Amino acid sequence: MCRWLAYTGEALKPSELILDTQHSLVAQSLNSPLGTETVNGDGFGFGWYPEDSSNGNRPALFHSIEPAWNDENLRELTSSIASPLFFGHVRAAAGPPIQQSNCHPFRHENWLFMHNGFLDGFLAMKRDLVLAIDESLFPLIHGTTDSEVLFYLAITLGLQDDPVAGLGRAIAMVESVGERKGIQFPMQGTIAVSDGHTLWAFRYSTSHRTRSLYHSTAIPELRELYPDAARLQVFGDNAKVVVSEPLTDLPGAFTEVQESTVAILDDNGYHHEPFLEQAA
Amino acid sequence: MCRWLAYTGEALKPSELILDTQHSLVAQSLNSPLGTETVNGDGFGFGWYPEDSSNGNRPALFHSIEPAWNDENLRELTSSIASPLFFGHVRAAAGPPIQQSNCHPFRHENWLFMHNGFLDGFLAMKRDLVLAIDESLFPLIHGTTDSEVLFYLAITLGLQDDPVAGLGRAIAMVESVGERKGIQFPMQGTIAVSDGHTLWAFRYSTSHRTRSLYHSTAIPELRELYPDAARLQVFGDNAKVVVSEPLTDLPGAFTEVQESTVAILDDNGYHHEPFLEQAA
Amino acid sequence: MCRWLAYTGEALKPSELILDTQHSLVAQSLNSPLGTETVNGDGFGFGWYPEDSSNGNRPALFHSIEPAWNDENLRELTSSIASPLFFGHVRAAAGPPIQQSNCHPFRHENWLFMHNGFLDGFLAMKRDLVLAIDESLFPLIHGTTDSEVLFYLAITLGLQDDPVAGLGRAIAMVESVGERKGIQFPMQGTIAVSDGHTLWAFRYSTSHRTRSLYHSTAIPELRELYPDAARLQVFGDNAKVVVSEPLTDLPGAFTEVQESTVAILDDNGYHHEPFLEQAA
Amino acid sequence: MCRWLAYTGEALKPSELILDTQHSLVAQSLNSPLGTETVNGDGFGFGWYPEDSSNGNRPALFHSIEPAWNDENLRELTSSIASPLFFGHVRAAAGPPIQQSNCHPFRHENWLFMHNGFLDGFLAMKRDLVLAIDESLFPLIHGTTDSEVLFYLAITLGLQDDPVAGLGRAIAMVESVGERKGIQFPMQGTIAVSDGHTLWAFRYSTSHRTRSLYHSTAIPELRELYPDAARLQVFGDNAKVVVSEPLTDLPGAFTEVQESTVAILDDNGYHHEPFLEQAA
Repeated sequence: MCRWLAYTGEALKPSELILDTQHSLVAQSLNSPLGTETVNGDGFGFGWYPEDSSNGNRPALFHSIEPAWNDENLRELTSSIASPLFFGHVRAAAGPPIQQSNCHPFRHENWLFMHNGFLDGFLAMKRDLVLAIDESLFPLIHGTTDSEVLFYLAITLGLQDDPVAGLGRAIAMVESVGERKGIQFPMQGTIAVSDGHTLWAFRYSTSHRTRSLYHSTAIPELRELYPDAARLQVFGDNAKVVVSEPLTDLPGAFTEVQESTVAILDDNGYHHEPFLEQAA
Repeated sequence: MCRWLAYTGEALKPSELILDTQHSLVAQSLNSPLGTETVNGDGFGFGWYPEDSSNGNRPALFHSIEPAWNDENLRELTSSIASPLFFGHVRAAAGPPIQQSNCHPFRHENWLFMHNGFLDGFLAMKRDLVLAIDESLFPLIHGTTDSEVLFYLAITLGLQDDPVAGLGRAIAMVESVGERKGIQFPMQGTIAVSDGHTLWAFRYSTSHRTRSLYHSTAIPELRELYPDAARLQVFGDNAKVVVSEPLTDLPGAFTEVQESTVAILDDNGYHHEPFLEQAA
Repeated sequence: MCRWLAYTGEALKPSELILDTQHSLVAQSLNSPLGTETVNGDGFGFGWYPEDSSNGNRPALFHSIEPAWNDENLRELTSSIASPLFFGHVRAAAGPPIQQSNCHPFRHENWLFMHNGFLDGFLAMKRDLVLAIDESLFPLIHGTTDSEVLFYLAITLGLQDDPVAGLGRAIAMVESVGERKGIQFPMQGTIAVSDGHTLWAFRYSTSHRTRSLYHSTAIPELRELYPDAARLQVFGDNAKVVVSEPLTDLPGAFTEVQESTVAILDDNGYHHEPFLEQAA
Repeated sequence: MCRWLAYTGEALKPSELILDTQHSLVAQSLNSPLGTETVNGDGFGFGWYPEDSSNGNRPALFHSIEPAWNDENLRELTSSIASPLFFGHVRAAAGPPIQQSNCHPFRHENWLFMHNGFLDGFLAMKRDLVLAIDESLFPLIHGTTDSEVLFYLAITLGLQDDPVAGLGRAIAMVESVGERKGIQFPMQGTIAVSDGHTLWAFRYSTSHRTRSLYHSTAIPELRELYPDAARLQVFGDNAKVVVSEPLTDLPGAFTEVQESTVAILDDNGYHHEPFLEQAA
């Protein structure tokens, strides 16, 4: 339903990816070549871990219900800070109203979460899913999206200890509730999760036909391929980005994350693991 | 937390009460002499039954997150229509975010509902209350306020058949859940309900110290009292208004609705009944 | 830059054209087949003459900076009133910021005005044009668009006495200032003007390649063509609409307004006149 | 009409002054003890020079039309950055509409400007003042406030070379135009200006009864006065703030800036100069 982008690496001015690339996130908000919807104009969100992590590594959020392409504040903000790990998300609403509390990314303590996709038949499942959320977390749900419910369900089921297992259990519960309600394909989407150090990017749907997901090629490799590309000078050697669709048409710059896979990005680089594969 | 106004009578241009009176609702939004909070600037709502009721008597809504005193659209709209029954509400938020889905009045089919007050300890009670809402109504909850939960709880418990009994049962359930959670005074507030014909205005709180509520004196009586008051010419003989605080300082123009009382306004005039009195 | 629609005829629920047609104005806001820009998501406006014209026939306005497809208030409002003459406009901003004061239609006394297009090189011409506006009108300019400046210039030059002559003089002045500034094609656009009784729809640009403009076929003719079309039952015999692009694919339902032409719609039907033709 | 605050000194988290002080700017927006208006809820602005001045020392802006006390984004932003020089402004509108382009501070290149007050009779003077603005600056006026016109007039008259002389000439022109128009007291207000290094704070009005203005006492002095004040630990020795009214009731913490005075704050501390005194 949406488009998102997550960056990790040397502290970077977020506008480099949110605004200034060929197919930047804001460009995608107005015209998304690979998206299900052409326009993602139903609000957006930006979440970033400050360079100075003295604040318990708590990320900051900027949510707006204006289309991203119009928002002067987004432009000012992302050009004036630097961050070693940030999330951007543009929304094409699929039902829940356009309001700041429905904008991704969602935050819990030092965790960020965002989602491109949907829980099919969410209204039929919502009551059961909400009931499965830990009572102490229940009051923290501020919006009305399926994505936020999935996030708090995953936290309830252990995301903070083990993101892959926690989110896996949450999706399994969604699929089980969905089955009881007669929903054929309850889960659809790509999801980004971070604790401020590691970035997990999931691609999974019950139907095994998930929306697209890509990550960038390692910068040193790209520099060898394109020694003259001035554009690459703004990135450090550890710069990595995961994104709904490539930010540039440069051949070799982006690699697809496969179906039913989680890509894990940290200081050691990328590695991919199967995710909920057995569920097929 | 808020201020509200409900009108019933001959079709009237709503701006007469919303904007153009001495202590109009918009004037109260900026400076409320009797309110707990001075400023009610956290969004507002306006709901009206059209003169032409061919649409199943379904009311229309206008919700905004801007302060009412700034909103040009409110000014234009309420000066350009006429309505025989309308609700206006200015909000001073007590927690739930400022978003259109949290603005009163709330609507279900041909019913309107608005509330000035709060459920104390709502976050602790919310899960139990939400669970008590009929499963078919659950997906209709669009916002995150205590007031909307109370509305759907009352519908679940029969508000559409008997508003006094239905709301009474809902408040009784709130008080019972509150007691279990150790909350001393769970319910606080004045509430307006209408089906498009009759207007019910409730004043009740567990502590029996409810926010203020007034209704206007019958217009023919007022005309006798103030034969020269040009202002009274804009109102028909059946014009009646219930409001958080008097719209004018004119002595005799407004009567207080007593504690634990429901005022019922219809073509036969006003009558008052005790409400949940035995709960005292 | 934008899309617009103007209706005159029997009082009609505006949602019939703004929301509920195949290519309704809101549908065009998200996907405009004939538009220069695909998306018109930078705010919108709706202006209507109330059925009851006792208010000096002054039209009412509703302006919003949200994309039209998201706006619940637009949906509620246009489904709850009826109007014999209304304007709707969705904007794709070409520079001036997205703010209510830049939303069309613009109003002066009983006149409405809206524009799809632009004054090329406006920033270079603005000072001279603004200076040519009558001193008494100057303080009434609330926004920063080229269109509003053109409106007040046309009023200065006689639009209220003779809309065709007044707008013609204003455009001639734009072209003369533009020539001095070395701008090849200063004027571009289609414009709707009304006094609440007659509707003037202009199609003109200096380059003689103006954005598209259509008006509907007379309803009685359409009923003969399509005796079974249930859709036509909602319209009265005098219903007429002018619009940037056809609201339906029904063959014969819409006629193009030619280049350098003004279409005049009133109780006597349509008639077309050349507009600024000699300027070619 | 408004309240403002300007900080210069060691890089500081702006929320310390915008949100977290006894009479913080956001607290003043809801309840301003010394203000002409109680409520300053008509939008706000925040402008800051980033710690990293590699961007030509260009300040960043965040403008919003929501009341400051509601704005989650303001809270997030000012808690997540640090800045050696920032401006905050809450607005009580006096006419020009509530829109981002009317929010202070205004920016031109590396300069910031904000104003609490008004040009009396602005609509009568506007045309003459706008005409006096340099043609190359004219297109940069994005909003419709008197304050922005005053800013560009001051730039036209040399503010960037000599802020005291440039603003002095602009105010002299306002007073001269005002005199021609029969306006008794054309200029009213306190103004903050900065180039990113020095901060100029002006207090002046034609009537010599200007709204209040204060600056903080030097931090080392305050530490001597209040050796136990934990609150003072967050500030560096060079921290200085100018503000419409004291941020705390701590005796000795704030000093009034006198009528017809400019306070100049830089690395050498404060110094005061008479401003337009002879005009009295």
